[in-house]
Amino acid sequence: MKSRVHSAIMDDSVPRPIRSTFAWLVGASQILGLASVVLTGVWMGHYRGGFAWDGSAREFNLHPLCMVLGLVFLHGDAILVYRVFRNEAKKNVKLLHSIIHLLALIMSIIGFVAVFDFHREAKIPDMYSLHSWCGMATLVLFCIQWVMGLLFFLFPVASSWLRALYLPIHVFCGLLLLVMAIGSSLLGITEKLLFSIMPAYSLFTPEGVLANTLGILLVCFGTLLGYLITREEYRRPPNPEEESLSVHFKTLTEGGSPTTP
Amino acid sequence: MKSRVHSAIMDDSVPRPIRSTFAWLVGASQILGLASVVLTGVWMGHYRGGFAWDGSAREFNLHPLCMVLGLVFLHGDAILVYRVFRNEAKKNVKLLHSIIHLLALIMSIIGFVAVFDFHREAKIPDMYSLHSWCGMATLVLFCIQWVMGLLFFLFPVASSWLRALYLPIHVFCGLLLLVMAIGSSLLGITEKLLFSIMPAYSLFTPEGVLANTLGILLVCFGTLLGYLITREEYRRPPNPEEESLSVHFKTLTEGGSPTTP
Repeated sequence: MKSRVHSAIMDDSVPRPIRSTFAWLVGASQILGLASVVLTGVWMGHYRGGFAWDGSAREFNLHPLCMVLGLVFLHGDAILVYRVFRNEAKKNVKLLHSIIHLLALIMSIIGFVAVFDFHREAKIPDMYSLHSWCGMATLVLFCIQWVMGLLFFLFPVASSWLRALYLPIHVFCGLLLLVMAIGSSLLGITEKLLFSIMPAYSLFTPEGVLANTLGILLVCFGTLLGYLITREEYRRPPNPEEESLSVHFKTLTEGGSPTTP
Repeated sequence: MKSRVHSAIMDDSVPRPIRSTFAWLVGASQILGLASVVLTGVWMGHYRGGFAWDGSAREFNLHPLCMVLGLVFLHGDAILVYRVFRNEAKKNVKLLHSIIHLLALIMSIIGFVAVFDFHREAKIPDMYSLHSWCGMATLVLFCIQWVMGLLFFLFPVASSWLRALYLPIHVFCGLLLLVMAIGSSLLGITEKLLFSIMPAYSLFTPEGVLANTLGILLVCFGTLLGYLITREEYRRPPNPEEESLSVHFKTLTEGGSPTTP
């Protein structure tokens, strides 16, 4: 992956300071994302008793880990591949984008099953909290977004006109879902802490500080990803051969570049 | 305000379907924003005992109301004026943008004082929760963003080159802070519910459902604002007289339009 990042960064059409900043920001985002996953693992593994698949609280512990790994880290990186490999063939980048999203989806579904299993065994009601409402909305929309992405872009059954119309919505929803996933994670962290370590939480106990730090890392990861994805100079440059139909659409709407997410 | 919105929407350079969708989306965002403020008022006023300034839980009740009104609704609308009045003189829009932000800042500071006052009287520790960490980060960054905005754009002490360099960061941070404010609000809703109405929360008690609905309305408000602000066709059209220096900068960096937030 490193050499590919290098090849993207060494593209001569992009000024050197922009390329260098981009590489540092991508590096920082990966450190933040991995640190979030590790911190979630340490929290659940060290402070909450580890992992198992037996309906106990140790099965619940898989829920935060799978969600942070799937819906936040992998989801964020699946979006980022369009910036990191912005000079590779679009077909390959699309395939990588959809494969990482598939992994994210599988992780998220395991995480969802884990919490529902645990609730059933422990006779805890489902879907009453704001965390569960936001989390469920995020997962359902994520599934819809993935299926729509497959149908519109990977095995394009829709017309070029419809694809160009849908693309900016797909791009917007991708970033929105990343933000919703991070927001839902923060709600989950708060719920878990208030259920498990009150009143010690208010005494700045190590577990509370670690979990709060995890929340801040997730916010920083989302912020960096948002910046990298929305900055104009990091976007995929238009390719006349790939984009002919879409450029026509762009002229019609006087909008942005609809086929360079 | 209605006639000004009308004048913006009736601009002939924008195709009719785009203008019409824009008007509907702005209307929907205002309904969602006002509904969020009203629901917060109902929650605190009806279910939590109303408002007062006496260090009691009724002073705390001003905290959610002021934050949702200031850091979410007014903050969102302060950003939106650049889209709604995108054909008015930039100087006037800037002034309106900074005045609404000033109101948002005043509201937020009242909300912050209210919660710290309440904590002091009730001897509750400050700043231990993820909600407080995220909320404090949002308010501090919001203050910095407001002062930087004043210095760079309203009473421009920086050079045109620096202003053009800073503008995309100012725009990005504005939207980021709106997202952070909404995220912090959701964390606050969750905290308040878990502190106040457990275990009734898990029985779908009306107060819990109302507060969860408030959370979903805030997410929808943020989503609509994010869409309206980032859609290319709703951006302020470049004005050759206002933008001469910046267009030069744009050509240099090959980036987006740096002076049309």
